[in-house]
Amino acid sequence: MNDTEAILDRVDANMPISVEKFVQFLAFPSVSSQPDGKKGIVACADWLRSELDDLGFDARIMTTDGHPLVLGTSQAGNGGPKVLFYGHYDVQPAEPLNAWSTPPFRPDIRLEDGLTRIYARGASDSKGQVWSVLQALRAWGQVQGGMPVDVTILLEGEEETGSPSLAAFVEANRNELVCDVAFICDSDMWSPTRPAITTRLKGLLHEKITILAPNSDLHSGHFGNVAVNPLRVLTNILAAIHDGQGKVTIEGFYDDVGPLPLALRKQWEALDLSEALAGVSVTGGPDEGGYGTVELMWGRPGIDFNGIVGGNTGPGERSVLPSSASARLSFRLVGGQRPEHIRALFRTFVEARLPAGCRVEFEGSGGSSAVSVNEASPYMAATARALDAEWPEPTLIKGSGGTVPLVGLLTDRLGVDCIVTGFILADDAIHAPNERYDVERLRKGIRSWVRILSELR
Amino acid sequence: MNDTEAILDRVDANMPISVEKFVQFLAFPSVSSQPDGKKGIVACADWLRSELDDLGFDARIMTTDGHPLVLGTSQAGNGGPKVLFYGHYDVQPAEPLNAWSTPPFRPDIRLEDGLTRIYARGASDSKGQVWSVLQALRAWGQVQGGMPVDVTILLEGEEETGSPSLAAFVEANRNELVCDVAFICDSDMWSPTRPAITTRLKGLLHEKITILAPNSDLHSGHFGNVAVNPLRVLTNILAAIHDGQGKVTIEGFYDDVGPLPLALRKQWEALDLSEALAGVSVTGGPDEGGYGTVELMWGRPGIDFNGIVGGNTGPGERSVLPSSASARLSFRLVGGQRPEHIRALFRTFVEARLPAGCRVEFEGSGGSSAVSVNEASPYMAATARALDAEWPEPTLIKGSGGTVPLVGLLTDRLGVDCIVTGFILADDAIHAPNERYDVERLRKGIRSWVRILSELR
Repeated sequence: MNDTEAILDRVDANMPISVEKFVQFLAFPSVSSQPDGKKGIVACADWLRSELDDLGFDARIMTTDGHPLVLGTSQAGNGGPKVLFYGHYDVQPAEPLNAWSTPPFRPDIRLEDGLTRIYARGASDSKGQVWSVLQALRAWGQVQGGMPVDVTILLEGEEETGSPSLAAFVEANRNELVCDVAFICDSDMWSPTRPAITTRLKGLLHEKITILAPNSDLHSGHFGNVAVNPLRVLTNILAAIHDGQGKVTIEGFYDDVGPLPLALRKQWEALDLSEALAGVSVTGGPDEGGYGTVELMWGRPGIDFNGIVGGNTGPGERSVLPSSASARLSFRLVGGQRPEHIRALFRTFVEARLPAGCRVEFEGSGGSSAVSVNEASPYMAATARALDAEWPEPTLIKGSGGTVPLVGLLTDRLGVDCIVTGFILADDAIHAPNERYDVERLRKGIRSWVRILSELR
Repeated sequence: MNDTEAILDRVDANMPISVEKFVQFLAFPSVSSQPDGKKGIVACADWLRSELDDLGFDARIMTTDGHPLVLGTSQAGNGGPKVLFYGHYDVQPAEPLNAWSTPPFRPDIRLEDGLTRIYARGASDSKGQVWSVLQALRAWGQVQGGMPVDVTILLEGEEETGSPSLAAFVEANRNELVCDVAFICDSDMWSPTRPAITTRLKGLLHEKITILAPNSDLHSGHFGNVAVNPLRVLTNILAAIHDGQGKVTIEGFYDDVGPLPLALRKQWEALDLSEALAGVSVTGGPDEGGYGTVELMWGRPGIDFNGIVGGNTGPGERSVLPSSASARLSFRLVGGQRPEHIRALFRTFVEARLPAGCRVEFEGSGGSSAVSVNEASPYMAATARALDAEWPEPTLIKGSGGTVPLVGLLTDRLGVDCIVTGFILADDAIHAPNERYDVERLRKGIRSWVRILSELR
């Protein structure tokens, strides 16, 4: 038995304790976007610091203007490559709570469909991803007495809010972060049997708009036909953003998009989506007049409405013209689209559609551009070999509609080769009620990271 | 001093105790449209029954499938006309609570702009109206030892939810309700100095629509460009309801509307709106391509959006495609528009715009048609004389965008002459936070009812 096999066996033997501690990790309500999530964030960061300590890492809490990061380093000092692992311990809000079968921060283990599933907010996105890396490092250390290469691990607490503190953090700590390869452990598999490395990620910006009428709330019977209704203004503006085919109508929105290389389009069109979209229906969705599903997901920019609220949202009827109405939107960017430019185009679009007497308030700043990583990196090939060895089907090189701000920062500012991989599946219900992860995937994820480390030394 | 003057003096002398007891009346959270309003409704009805008892009325709680009515009768037995007074003791929900300067059910008395104002939910709509009638009856009884004519008083607890139990109640109790004239005490003045009788009221129906996607909540980055977004479907449907000028686009909506008589339009166009719209801006409002403000308010049908909710309504950002989104609408009808027909047209309109894979759920039933009362009734003239005597300016005969279902029931089913009058003003903030009424208007309202009773005997 070679040493990699011994470490893989150790991973398997560790599974009971790995699951037990994973449940502890999931119990922290580390919701980054809500003010009352702060306590859970801080407690979770402390717990992670102590876990890294336990692995023999030099572990520190790194404060920011927002939520803290946890940084751990371990020197092998053997001249091998320096490796950075990145993950995030913050999670999406769990609302609506009544849609959960069991409380989101009281992890529930169930036997279903031949799998042992763990239900909790963050189980898949992204505590399951972080935990897989940590358990691989643990097994390696247990068997070998230390890491095979210099390892830095960076765990963020603001990924779900667009990583507002990350750019400044990377700038201030570039010496600690410079590395030969960075693994971004926050992406998905192509199917339950086929691993994937994501090489194209979209950019992202969030905007909130609030339409304010010149009046306070009014009786809609008396004034409905004459006073301006912010709900009507808002729905008119939102409806004008897309044409009948789902194309964005904001002037200039597509200017910096550029066409998809023909070879890539062909490769994407050949993919069988049946497992990648398991549990997700795309019936009735927009297609921009004929784009393929994969290109829409990975290669086309889009604007989504994530929330809307105004007027009477209670259980009963109410004849009210509300004084304001608001919506939250997110923009997924590709190619050369710059977030601040897109934001400005959008705000101009809204202001041009505002009736006399109304005001609009915008909330939103920052954002990130799309990023493509170096597909020719030797670390990419090494990672694919490792994944191929663990999973039944060969690794797919793919795109994603999601966004990981750190990839852009490391690629553009530090010139690091980034490998974006992970073990999330479409039906893990990430960002939704009843989010879950399964124990077998956790085990194979840990083993995958052991194999990747083995390829790197 | 004739006896009417003596009773009016008694009204003035009673004001301190009238205000004190009005505050008690306002403290009941009698919100009819919310499940937890039931307790406040029942307590308020009991309190009113005991108040009517105290006036020497035979007073009873009348149960229904929904909230109870309070019915009081007093026989003069002198061969004079039989008079019915109608009001409602239920109130609109007070939300949003944080927009109130003082709690909505803890009435707050303030000296402002030379007026003594009482702030509370229902102060104007419609507890102030009900209280004015009751205090007029009290003063009359105190001075004369009884009522001048046979009086029935009917106080409803479901007006703010479209009076779902009222038709069955009127049918079952028609013998008790048949009368020579019915006063509907729930409408507004033209200005602080000019009283009004409302002879045209709009019909009303409420609808709630919920758009349901084929998926549960999804990550909007991963699936935003391919899966259907119920928020986008909902805003598209809502935006399609009106054209750019504010005209309703639903086919057949205007079929039974009919033109306004030219003479009436001229009379309405001549009105000076400056005081009637005090505090309400109509800038930027829809005008259907050139209709006048008064015709839009009193003579044109309309569809309002009263509430909308879906997806992330919390404080933070969230990349979610929600699984559903819903809106509440109300329809104000005129002429021959029938609520069930309009509801069917609307539902067909929505269903025709539903993308494949989505479902829609509708919630709403009942509703009322528009009604015009008999302007030639001698009771109309008598009421106008009484109001003219109390207020500085002559009574205006006017329309309203509001709805009082009882008027249609009494007019159409019992053939009763209805007089719709009251003392609400545009800036009383009815259906809105910081609703209010002022003590001087309360006093003159009570005196108005004394004068009306005096005209009737």
